Amino acid sequence: MTLNSSGFGWISLTTDYGRSDAFAAALHGVIARTAPTVRVIDVTHEVRPGDVTRGAAVLAQTVPYLPESVHVAVVDPGVGTARRAIALGTPSGLLVGPDNGLLMAAADALGGITDAIELTNAAWHGERVSATFHGRDIFAPVASRLSLGAPLSDAGDAVAVGDLVRLPPPIVTRGEGYLEAEVLTVDRFGNVQLAATADDLARLGTHVTVGGMRAVRTTTFGEAPPGSLIVFGDSAGHAAVAINGGRAVVALGLEPGDVIRVATL
Amino acid sequence: MTLNSSGFGWISLTTDYGRSDAFAAALHGVIARTAPTVRVIDVTHEVRPGDVTRGAAVLAQTVPYLPESVHVAVVDPGVGTARRAIALGTPSGLLVGPDNGLLMAAADALGGITDAIELTNAAWHGERVSATFHGRDIFAPVASRLSLGAPLSDAGDAVAVGDLVRLPPPIVTRGEGYLEAEVLTVDRFGNVQLAATADDLARLGTHVTVGGMRAVRTTTFGEAPPGSLIVFGDSAGHAAVAINGGRAVVALGLEPGDVIRVATL
Amino acid sequence: MTLNSSGFGWISLTTDYGRSDAFAAALHGVIARTAPTVRVIDVTHEVRPGDVTRGAAVLAQTVPYLPESVHVAVVDPGVGTARRAIALGTPSGLLVGPDNGLLMAAADALGGITDAIELTNAAWHGERVSATFHGRDIFAPVASRLSLGAPLSDAGDAVAVGDLVRLPPPIVTRGEGYLEAEVLTVDRFGNVQLAATADDLARLGTHVTVGGMRAVRTTTFGEAPPGSLIVFGDSAGHAAVAINGGRAVVALGLEPGDVIRVATL
Repeated sequence: MTLNSSGFGWISLTTDYGRSDAFAAALHGVIARTAPTVRVIDVTHEVRPGDVTRGAAVLAQTVPYLPESVHVAVVDPGVGTARRAIALGTPSGLLVGPDNGLLMAAADALGGITDAIELTNAAWHGERVSATFHGRDIFAPVASRLSLGAPLSDAGDAVAVGDLVRLPPPIVTRGEGYLEAEVLTVDRFGNVQLAATADDLARLGTHVTVGGMRAVRTTTFGEAPPGSLIVFGDSAGHAAVAINGGRAVVALGLEPGDVIRVATL
Repeated sequence: MTLNSSGFGWISLTTDYGRSDAFAAALHGVIARTAPTVRVIDVTHEVRPGDVTRGAAVLAQTVPYLPESVHVAVVDPGVGTARRAIALGTPSGLLVGPDNGLLMAAADALGGITDAIELTNAAWHGERVSATFHGRDIFAPVASRLSLGAPLSDAGDAVAVGDLVRLPPPIVTRGEGYLEAEVLTVDRFGNVQLAATADDLARLGTHVTVGGMRAVRTTTFGEAPPGSLIVFGDSAGHAAVAINGGRAVVALGLEPGDVIRVATL
Repeated sequence: MTLNSSGFGWISLTTDYGRSDAFAAALHGVIARTAPTVRVIDVTHEVRPGDVTRGAAVLAQTVPYLPESVHVAVVDPGVGTARRAIALGTPSGLLVGPDNGLLMAAADALGGITDAIELTNAAWHGERVSATFHGRDIFAPVASRLSLGAPLSDAGDAVAVGDLVRLPPPIVTRGEGYLEAEVLTVDRFGNVQLAATADDLARLGTHVTVGGMRAVRTTTFGEAPPGSLIVFGDSAGHAAVAINGGRAVVALGLEPGDVIRVATL
């Protein structure tokens, strides 16, 4: 992959750092010092602390809409332990972060892994590497160099793709007239996104039950009366549950990781 | 209006998307892919979900301080229904968003509407338009093209300005020695901004009552003793109520939309 | 100091404005209008309202990782009163904000104050200066001019460094086998940062008590069993307390300003 042959490029950041501390700003600063012409898009810094599954989902669903980038993701409860720091090549961008499963769904969304490198080249790291802030001291410095066009293979030693850590796949069961699916994420509006796809949903009837409650399969919020439960294919292509003008997550009493049944009525 | 004759420009974003999901990031990404030289200012993504009135106020009060821009605003509970998607021309910038009243106060602040277009030109939209995320699939793509200098009239069909949706004007009643005004917004510091203006306030005495409580008319927080209630002309030219070192919104027990009386003592 | 001889530069922003209002966006806008080539890094806008001590700490710990910049900081409960507005020169950047102690630790981190100027040159301010929003009307306009290379001495009148307001130094007491230190900040993960340094901690044994609870001195979170209390040198070089997978601030019941004892067991 030739990224930045013109010396211009993008880095995206996905972390659980929040914005009340200046951890995210330190990443911006390190990038600005090393690669001042590169521009940065904050995917989000509000992943729940340590929630690798959530970080993986939000990144994978966003990368298709970002420019070709070096995507840095840091949700890293194992920072400073033996977990590897890695960079992955794909047909349409690079990924940099911990080897804890965080990057894998995004790599799939970008066309699959073409190269995997452990970040063992200490010359690319910050001058002093702390034990607790590898985002600032390893991932951002490495991403900056990559964004300027340095070859991925110079970042360290090759790793076999099969040796990379993967998260367990989310639960989805498809049956005659029903599906059972894990809750993947809940968004700001209280809409509940399932691991099942919009296509899975299309196999069901127009009138369904969701977690035992009656719902209508529709395409958007406003098609149902205010307060009614709807199931629909969301903007990321997933099956989702919402309430027109309300918060489905409250009505259903769910959280990420729970499994819910949607069945034709 | 000639925007970006030099090929450089700005887009501003005002939404209720929050930052814990990556909806705002998707807008940044779509803009970066279509108009990589354009720079983006986030006005806020923390409008309360669906609060069109708040979104309209915060945008209108901010645009005077932004560079000439394409201002995208998305507080859009009717997404995917028959509500129109529009772009508005003004003497000093463009506005893009839903036709639900959100853009109108900002258009006034920018000098009034010179052109109104319904975004019917599907060639300017994303490849696949979801039913629930028009920010990503319609508004950001259209704004990107406009920021690069594409003519507003190419975005779709002209709409009569009189046919655009307007929010009801906020309540302001001016009497002899008093005013009654709707609470427009409450800021992070608990300061309460009224729909009345600083000039309205100047007609009252120095000692007033606000919602039945004694207050002093002053110019800044620190002029009154800690804990005392003050009324003042705020940085947007509105009448406002604050407590030096405290939260007026708590003392007064108000929220946006409530009406409060300020009277000379 | 020659900043921006090439006409390119950076401004950083540290405030207590939050992001639910558009105060931070107004700063971005003012900068974009005056200095459109300059780029902006948001350190944080989530300093607790009026918490000058916290603002000073987060800025000082971040500036070493930012590019050479004009750093604007506004945590300013005395806005509009007689407190001075100032700009400080240092060997590696400029600082702009209120003279209430907010900028001093950052100035130390940048190599010490070489010049101190009161921002009395009204020609550099906004057209209308409000009594309550000097970030928009004074600090951002002044920072924009400085970022474009205008001389610091043109911003106003020189102030003696000894006359600048300083915050009281945080409490740190070092004894035989123990230290007592003020809690400086608590981060998003519930980790408690002390005013003592990592070196102070290194003088103690491996097994210690922290606020009466048993803890282990280690280098990173994952070295201790989940749920155990650890003390460590954090990424800013401070002594800190954490719980592997938990929130030390909750276990210890502390808040910034409290003093805690760490002692060899």
